[in-house]
Amino acid sequence: MNMIDIIQKKKEGKSLSREEIKWFIDGYVAGDIPDYQASALLMAIYFRGLNKEETFQLTEAMRYSGDTIDLSPISGIKVDKHSTGGVGDKTTLVVAPLASACGVPIAKMSGRGLGFTGGTVDKMESIPGFRTALAPQEFLDQVNHVGMAVIGQTAHITPADKKLYALRDVTATVDNFGLIASSIMSKKLAAGSDAIVLDVKCGDGAFMENKEDAVKLAELMVEIGNNAGRKTVAAITEMGQPLGKAVGNSLEVIEAIETLKGKGPDDITQLALRLSGIMVYLGGKASSPEAGLKMTEAALADGRGLAKLRAFIEAQGGNPQVVDDYNLFPEHSVEDRLIAQSDGYVSKIEARRIGLSSQHTGAGRATKEASIDLSAGIYVCKKVGDKVEKGETLAIFYGNDKAKVDAAMAEAQKAFEIGAEPVEPPELIKEIIGL
Amino acid sequence: MNMIDIIQKKKEGKSLSREEIKWFIDGYVAGDIPDYQASALLMAIYFRGLNKEETFQLTEAMRYSGDTIDLSPISGIKVDKHSTGGVGDKTTLVVAPLASACGVPIAKMSGRGLGFTGGTVDKMESIPGFRTALAPQEFLDQVNHVGMAVIGQTAHITPADKKLYALRDVTATVDNFGLIASSIMSKKLAAGSDAIVLDVKCGDGAFMENKEDAVKLAELMVEIGNNAGRKTVAAITEMGQPLGKAVGNSLEVIEAIETLKGKGPDDITQLALRLSGIMVYLGGKASSPEAGLKMTEAALADGRGLAKLRAFIEAQGGNPQVVDDYNLFPEHSVEDRLIAQSDGYVSKIEARRIGLSSQHTGAGRATKEASIDLSAGIYVCKKVGDKVEKGETLAIFYGNDKAKVDAAMAEAQKAFEIGAEPVEPPELIKEIIGL
Repeated sequence: MNMIDIIQKKKEGKSLSREEIKWFIDGYVAGDIPDYQASALLMAIYFRGLNKEETFQLTEAMRYSGDTIDLSPISGIKVDKHSTGGVGDKTTLVVAPLASACGVPIAKMSGRGLGFTGGTVDKMESIPGFRTALAPQEFLDQVNHVGMAVIGQTAHITPADKKLYALRDVTATVDNFGLIASSIMSKKLAAGSDAIVLDVKCGDGAFMENKEDAVKLAELMVEIGNNAGRKTVAAITEMGQPLGKAVGNSLEVIEAIETLKGKGPDDITQLALRLSGIMVYLGGKASSPEAGLKMTEAALADGRGLAKLRAFIEAQGGNPQVVDDYNLFPEHSVEDRLIAQSDGYVSKIEARRIGLSSQHTGAGRATKEASIDLSAGIYVCKKVGDKVEKGETLAIFYGNDKAKVDAAMAEAQKAFEIGAEPVEPPELIKEIIGL
Repeated sequence: MNMIDIIQKKKEGKSLSREEIKWFIDGYVAGDIPDYQASALLMAIYFRGLNKEETFQLTEAMRYSGDTIDLSPISGIKVDKHSTGGVGDKTTLVVAPLASACGVPIAKMSGRGLGFTGGTVDKMESIPGFRTALAPQEFLDQVNHVGMAVIGQTAHITPADKKLYALRDVTATVDNFGLIASSIMSKKLAAGSDAIVLDVKCGDGAFMENKEDAVKLAELMVEIGNNAGRKTVAAITEMGQPLGKAVGNSLEVIEAIETLKGKGPDDITQLALRLSGIMVYLGGKASSPEAGLKMTEAALADGRGLAKLRAFIEAQGGNPQVVDDYNLFPEHSVEDRLIAQSDGYVSKIEARRIGLSSQHTGAGRATKEASIDLSAGIYVCKKVGDKVEKGETLAIFYGNDKAKVDAAMAEAQKAFEIGAEPVEPPELIKEIIGL
């Protein structure tokens, strides 16, 4: 095989064979195929697309490009959950304890935040003592004993995806359905769970800005997962405004705890209950998603979800007292407020701008190597549909650098729109695919 | 400026500005922009195209990416000639002496052959003693004293084109009109002549396989040349079968000499007279292309063209006696013949296969670094439209390696088609653009 012929073939709109895709991925990871040929192929793929079979084969080739996790030492049906990324998305920290409390083993790998989106690993690191790296046996043991474990991605999982994603990032070839779907699913399949619930975010603060695109991506990923023998379900959910009210690492962990105490914002509470209900169903612990939902509602109401979070934090070396005493989280020294300049109704809160604003406070990183302020972030007091009066606080900003907090305020100011007419809040769960 | 934004812009089908194109070319030549971003942009250009203004700006940016030649020390209107490349194309060795004999100064740079196409520099090097590298002053002096000089390209001309072409070659991004036109024209403009005659080959043995594409490319190049203030004319000419009968370095030089003696094949004779006639007109030595043609016909008939070739060879250190004694050229030790297996008329001689066959004899190179056999090649005895009888020789193969000559024969055999019905020879000059 020859890389020029493969580029030419895709350029002409022809389909690549399983062998050609595997040869490319293996050669690229081995360093035999240079970046400049890979990027030419990626751009040809952007224009010509990948059909479902090619997308599946690319997923499989990347899935097996490094280590794959064997979760068979864990008894029961392991269910994974993945979000395509958004602003204020602390869902994992709520759904994992709820599903685990209902008997579903959760053995999950999470990522770090980049740009305007956050990552679960960063959030967990705001808990004093928490370890996001566990040895393989430790990881399996914890799931067997505690019911859940969440760690950062190891270096040996899907190296092809890592290398290819870094190249896509600098060659304007990120935005293609086949490339996005295969990137996500290769990691999920390598991570070893038996079933997968995907939370495909949709709106200004997400990768997919409109519902049509989100549905298309979700359908593709569900098909890949099912083809690979993993029962896969996807929910299309709102990301036009931030999820919940807290944006920023420790702030989001606190909001997740509050949610498990039954005092969380309505949207994150409803979303977490619904997604964890589906996980309970896929994990074989409920006869239907609806029955699963009833079980997670009960686990929330009677505190079993919160107890599971506490046990999980303790098992991974974190201080479980954070659940009761939020002062144990990293502290901020600077605080400021954005004040409403008129009466009315919040008609828009651009999630992307809030994400950027949070990054400005110090909570996010512009490059992979940058360090972050785990105490920094934004608390959104008013959400879309809320009535506001002139002088009320729209959002509170936290951090340790006044200049950064000022920059965050300036950005966030542009995110809010207040109108005279009442506004319906956006639909939270727009569609569920694969049930 | 930022390379990702530039790739994204072209990917979305937007036009790049003069500044963006210049920034890319300068950064790429300087090594600040990596190959993988350049190849992503090239693939986006393949799909989205370059408009005329972008193509012109790319040409200008590449033209000035290295040295440009100042031909002003040569008196008169200097006229360049360029062929897009074909099989058996020894036109330069005929048109340059004829135009020069009519008073047009020729200060030309030529290239080497690659793959199935030949290059003038290789051909000239089959003349014992001939130097294809001259010092700048020597080059200018020779044109002033002898009327013509032809040298190889220096390393300092259009480095952007050299680097970009090498990248296009390995990323399947060669075949785009804007990229091809800007590549050719940047070199021609940097080479400094006042007027340019382009021979755009068309057919199976050329880059442009059909007339429509050849016309499109020719129109684009003529517009670029004229925009840059250089009067430019393009002829669309036949390359479905080899030009003339000789293919291979010394064989082609001998055919060029024969043509200047009035004994050449009809097609190369007619083409050379017509193109050199246009050059004489553009050089201000004739009032019309037709008057120019009459002058070159006269220079051929009375031997002034041949005398000019002799003087040119001698001036560049070559042995001028080759004009009279072909035994002075490098010798071959192997010779074989392809024999007609049936009576009929030659209906097809695939130029590309003949070019490949010639490469197999040792006359061509597969990679830039390969060495070649200057004595090797093919003499095509029968051309399209010729009547043949069973047992007659279709082509003769020369070389110094029996295995290579055998391989060449096997390839060439597939190039010939003989039919029962009489066949019209193809039209030699299909269109002239820019007159």
